[in-house]
Amino acid sequence: MSARPDTAVTQIAFADLQALLHRIFVHNGTRDAVAASLAYNCASAQRDGAHSHGVFRIPGYVSTLASGWVDGQAVPVVDDVASGFVRVDAGGGFAQPALAAARELLVKKARSAGIAVLAIHNSHHFAALWPDVEPFAEEGLVALSVVNSMTCVVPHGARQPLFGTNPIAFAAPCAESDPIVFDMATSAMAHGDVQIAARKGEMLPDGIGVDSEGQPTRDPRKILDGGALLPFGGHKGSALSMMVELLAAALTGGNFSFEFDWSQHPGAKTPWTGQLIIVIDPAKAEGNHFAERSRQLVEQMHAVGLSRMPGERRFREREVSDQEGVSLTVQELEQLQAMAQA
Amino acid sequence: MSARPDTAVTQIAFADLQALLHRIFVHNGTRDAVAASLAYNCASAQRDGAHSHGVFRIPGYVSTLASGWVDGQAVPVVDDVASGFVRVDAGGGFAQPALAAARELLVKKARSAGIAVLAIHNSHHFAALWPDVEPFAEEGLVALSVVNSMTCVVPHGARQPLFGTNPIAFAAPCAESDPIVFDMATSAMAHGDVQIAARKGEMLPDGIGVDSEGQPTRDPRKILDGGALLPFGGHKGSALSMMVELLAAALTGGNFSFEFDWSQHPGAKTPWTGQLIIVIDPAKAEGNHFAERSRQLVEQMHAVGLSRMPGERRFREREVSDQEGVSLTVQELEQLQAMAQA
Repeated sequence: MSARPDTAVTQIAFADLQALLHRIFVHNGTRDAVAASLAYNCASAQRDGAHSHGVFRIPGYVSTLASGWVDGQAVPVVDDVASGFVRVDAGGGFAQPALAAARELLVKKARSAGIAVLAIHNSHHFAALWPDVEPFAEEGLVALSVVNSMTCVVPHGARQPLFGTNPIAFAAPCAESDPIVFDMATSAMAHGDVQIAARKGEMLPDGIGVDSEGQPTRDPRKILDGGALLPFGGHKGSALSMMVELLAAALTGGNFSFEFDWSQHPGAKTPWTGQLIIVIDPAKAEGNHFAERSRQLVEQMHAVGLSRMPGERRFREREVSDQEGVSLTVQELEQLQAMAQA
Repeated sequence: MSARPDTAVTQIAFADLQALLHRIFVHNGTRDAVAASLAYNCASAQRDGAHSHGVFRIPGYVSTLASGWVDGQAVPVVDDVASGFVRVDAGGGFAQPALAAARELLVKKARSAGIAVLAIHNSHHFAALWPDVEPFAEEGLVALSVVNSMTCVVPHGARQPLFGTNPIAFAAPCAESDPIVFDMATSAMAHGDVQIAARKGEMLPDGIGVDSEGQPTRDPRKILDGGALLPFGGHKGSALSMMVELLAAALTGGNFSFEFDWSQHPGAKTPWTGQLIIVIDPAKAEGNHFAERSRQLVEQMHAVGLSRMPGERRFREREVSDQEGVSLTVQELEQLQAMAQA
């Protein structure tokens, strides 16, 4: 077996991967509902080929839990503020169980008021954002979510980093089709993808980041070692990243990306910030045929030559994983199994 | 006087410019409230140095009204759909009077429910978008608006244009300061700026657009003459432009950017689409100190070296205009005066 390369790939059933990750989380101090949220999220990312947010993240979760930086036992406190506004104090725990705790109330309000907002604060988000919005679209709702993260992006026109990678995720129903879902960092590249490039020793395209002197670099290690990322799309992406700070932190009561200090928690990796989710019920829209209209837009996008919709790759990878099992390397699987028993 | 260059600049008091534009609109067939909305919007853009949406737009408004494409007499019909949802049928008129007609109800709902949405359809929007959101921030509210326009942007990865320039505008209050406001086309450049460059005979930067063969070009005339714009920021800006189509058209009951046909109305310039405005009351947020938190973010942005906030230039130009009058060329002023009497 010694000749087996580290990159040899194996498959595992989605439910088995979920159960394995669940055991790792519980083993590392989370309560059961927290483990369930995080295991589902992380296994889904791996299943859908979103590897920067798949099992690649598990060592970071484990070191963070071990450091005492995040409370794996936290019980979110839901506050019904107004007919369209729900707040959650995640209690220093993860954002996903906070969303799960408030989700039913949020959907009820959106269906009644036409629109509702969920403001989560005192929360840690270390995962892909699309798993938070996609289920709303599967229920026929439109959802938009933003989460801020940790200082690693230089605002356009500034000299030093301040913003997080600050993703925006959007999901909308589409008739006779998977929902339309995208999830984009407002940085030129997601932080996890920079880490993966660094691990593989690959150079990045131009325009992604700067080194510790503020000089442009294509070396992902220099970006991670005291350097920083740039926003996507120049001043426009930078303005959107600023908007994410305002919505995900100022409007939730969470920390800005530059405010928390984890220096006393070696191993901590999870940004301690906030998350905002806006849900709209298109049944309230003129004509009440949103999903059919989405479908018409998608058809026209194909007609002008678009070969792949935003987010479509995940659905195609999911189909393959559902048939053949979720792919990961043998080495990754062995590491996960060890972490579940360590 | 014949030696006077076309570019000689003069100043006019804001109220006088507004009154002059008002007369032009009424003279060209709009009712008084419509003229008031459009004159205020257009004069504000000129005052704030946003010249692509200032008096530069007036000939387009006039030719559109003359073509019968837009109904300058339309009376918007406001529909109170749910505790957080207002619809307006603009009746084939302009979007600004539709917003004005629904604005009080929208604000009331946002303050009560915490969040509310205004969906305008059957409307024409030919103006800057920030004047629609900035007043909400001045009342302490957070506002986000999107409007789709007309096919002129090639989706990332496609061969032909489909999307409009599809701007996103955002406004938020900021303590002891002007509000934070931005307004960005999701195209690499706003259509009006391409028109201005073409008029001046200037070349554009790389990455803005393609010619009628789909080949990259820096010539704004080739972009306008059967060519097209590209989205800003590659696939991410393209995904945002798609989102704007879904929110501004599918969710309002308006036309997609590719759906309307103005070929029977020579002179028509105004996209006949929809507009969505989401308003959030940050008084419902945890801690209720949004404006102070905005202030802290702005201070940190300055601390990392940002010399100018997004949208700040408009406020600085406004200060100058308030003191010295609104600048425009003598030629522009004479043309406006002629249009008011023609």
